[in-house]
Amino acid sequence: MITVFFDFSCPFAWRGLELAEVLRQHEGFEFELLHFSLEQHNHPENAANRFEPTWFAHQQPTEESKTLLSLLGSLAAKQQGAECHRAFVLELFRAHHQDRLSLRDPETLKTAAQRANLDLPRFEYDLHENRDALREELKEDLSDACRLKVFGTPTFVLESGDAAYFRFRELPETPETARALWDLYTQVLASEARIETVKKPR
Amino acid sequence: MITVFFDFSCPFAWRGLELAEVLRQHEGFEFELLHFSLEQHNHPENAANRFEPTWFAHQQPTEESKTLLSLLGSLAAKQQGAECHRAFVLELFRAHHQDRLSLRDPETLKTAAQRANLDLPRFEYDLHENRDALREELKEDLSDACRLKVFGTPTFVLESGDAAYFRFRELPETPETARALWDLYTQVLASEARIETVKKPR
Repeated sequence: MITVFFDFSCPFAWRGLELAEVLRQHEGFEFELLHFSLEQHNHPENAANRFEPTWFAHQQPTEESKTLLSLLGSLAAKQQGAECHRAFVLELFRAHHQDRLSLRDPETLKTAAQRANLDLPRFEYDLHENRDALREELKEDLSDACRLKVFGTPTFVLESGDAAYFRFRELPETPETARALWDLYTQVLASEARIETVKKPR
Repeated sequence: MITVFFDFSCPFAWRGLELAEVLRQHEGFEFELLHFSLEQHNHPENAANRFEPTWFAHQQPTEESKTLLSLLGSLAAKQQGAECHRAFVLELFRAHHQDRLSLRDPETLKTAAQRANLDLPRFEYDLHENRDALREELKEDLSDACRLKVFGTPTFVLESGDAAYFRFRELPETPETARALWDLYTQVLASEARIETVKKPR
């Protein structure tokens, strides 16, 4: 099982999740999808130590956050099982990054839930009536991210325990090139030279 | 010709230069060694835009800088040719990171110059009497680094124009593993996915 942390606002996380989906379908890889909040991580009040936050995304009003509603929506989808969750996550990423729909708009979540063939009344119920429980689940994911010192998305955590932020611009066009990209990434993580960073200037 | 930017205070730049030396000796690679100032890049007065600095390392008094003397020393060594420069750079990196000698101490530079078999009187003369010219040369390197948006060391710039900061902890033990590490790095840079960052959490 590979863990991947993501935030819906991040286009690199979107590509990372699309890559994961290709690897799942064609290579049988399994991914655990965990939520991350760039808003929390980068919040000025957390500047002293970003891994021991004092400003928590899960405690905020949804109206004041760019991404909290999307994260809670994702956790509402997760109540319908891992398969529904995966489908919803991909559809919400696509709705936002391809169709340019706002993550703050409840209609965007509904669209993603429909496209992912979720039980819509149940989704709406969980999102609105079980919100406190979803906030607690979000807190757990964000706490895991802090423990692992995740600082950006997507971050993949391999079964070996190796982990890294992985930012790429072009989604591979075939399952073969997707696999090659993944192999390159995991080679970097497993290198005996203990590579910590490869980062191009912007 | 591969360009590498380095700062003597950086242990990752040291490893990068040792890697370059193995590749030069065993694979015939050629490297151009350019100077970088982490002090300038990270200076609070340059926070607004680190690639358009207003605080310049080359203008500072050497007594007030942790690294300026080492950079000027390196440029003094360069006056004796590329081979002398390369030898001096490696010896100064080793003197600082292996022998724990201070980069601020003129004796450390002298030790490195001796170990690199430099013409010592000429080295001392260039360092002290031609200092203004060396400061101008340093300014050129730092300006090149800003143009390329170098933010850390070592940063290698390939002949393809691709460039990236490359941070690893363990120097490969054999020429073969050094070459494999380099190939992995260049594969990441050349990837059709346009990989921008692979970075492990600390």
